[in-house]
Amino acid sequence: MSKRQAINPWGEAFKGLTFAPAVRRGNMLFISGTDATMLDENGRRVIRGGFIEQMILDEAGATFDDIVWTCEYITTKEGYKATAQVRREIFGDNFPASTGIVVKDLLSRDALIEMDAVAILDK
Amino acid sequence: MSKRQAINPWGEAFKGLTFAPAVRRGNMLFISGTDATMLDENGRRVIRGGFIEQMILDEAGATFDDIVWTCEYITTKEGYKATAQVRREIFGDNFPASTGIVVKDLLSRDALIEMDAVAILDK
Amino acid sequence: MSKRQAINPWGEAFKGLTFAPAVRRGNMLFISGTDATMLDENGRRVIRGGFIEQMILDEAGATFDDIVWTCEYITTKEGYKATAQVRREIFGDNFPASTGIVVKDLLSRDALIEMDAVAILDK
Repeated sequence: MSKRQAINPWGEAFKGLTFAPAVRRGNMLFISGTDATMLDENGRRVIRGGFIEQMILDEAGATFDDIVWTCEYITTKEGYKATAQVRREIFGDNFPASTGIVVKDLLSRDALIEMDAVAILDK
Repeated sequence: MSKRQAINPWGEAFKGLTFAPAVRRGNMLFISGTDATMLDENGRRVIRGGFIEQMILDEAGATFDDIVWTCEYITTKEGYKATAQVRREIFGDNFPASTGIVVKDLLSRDALIEMDAVAILDK
Repeated sequence: MSKRQAINPWGEAFKGLTFAPAVRRGNMLFISGTDATMLDENGRRVIRGGFIEQMILDEAGATFDDIVWTCEYITTKEGYKATAQVRREIFGDNFPASTGIVVKDLLSRDALIEMDAVAILDK
């Protein structure tokens, strides 16, 4: 069993934080909760899921097909439907097992939704 | 490492949804958050946990003994005690590691409790 | 694949509970949500994370370096910063992937924070 490997596409930007963006050990990859909210050109908050996960998966030599589980944390029930389109775009037909819950708050300021994930890689 | 396999005892009923009831890869099985609330003969909401998981485990060739972890999401602290009896029935003495948290809301309408799970299978 | 093994450093004290402190199967270890709150000498609630996990890891023949993922459940956003120092002490530079969410309540009375974890062991 190979030792754990931190997956960190952002290098020094994570210095001082007390978690890794993702950790791989053997063929398992654990991806930290990731805020999927971004501001659009008009300053409105929009869901833009998948970009951060894509960077992590690239760095780990994995793809969205390798994700077997996700948990989505949202602050309002209404916001959840917006995630379906994102999920179709990033997962195609290979949807992971998933849980979605409405939480009191998220740690990222202004975040509407956060997702963490587990992937199992080919090798 | 065999590729991922969606476990879906309900077939077309899941068409349009953006998650699989469960996903297996290798000997690991990830089960999506499952609402354990049902209406009894008098229209009262009751906890009837385990039925949905049983169907998924059957389809995957697994048993409750293979479940190593669960997370239970409840909307009120009072509702949690009701889950203990269900857990004794389905797990016997082989309890998984578990976390229970009180969330703001669940996505399933009228749900009182939701549980997701991870199983590790024999082969 | 060896069968599941409950990790329980507290023996009979867990009798009657419907979860195991941790479960190991193969080289994976799942640690139940653990309240990190303790009362200090003045009766104030303080975060004292890591002690319970240390007992579980010892019993399982693992170390904090083997932890690949944690989820932290807190009741107020303000309480989260207090966890960073604990995480530095127990993880050193080997931080796991992690998610932190603000929940409505925790099941342990007076708990401020709860953490669950997944470890992957050498063998």
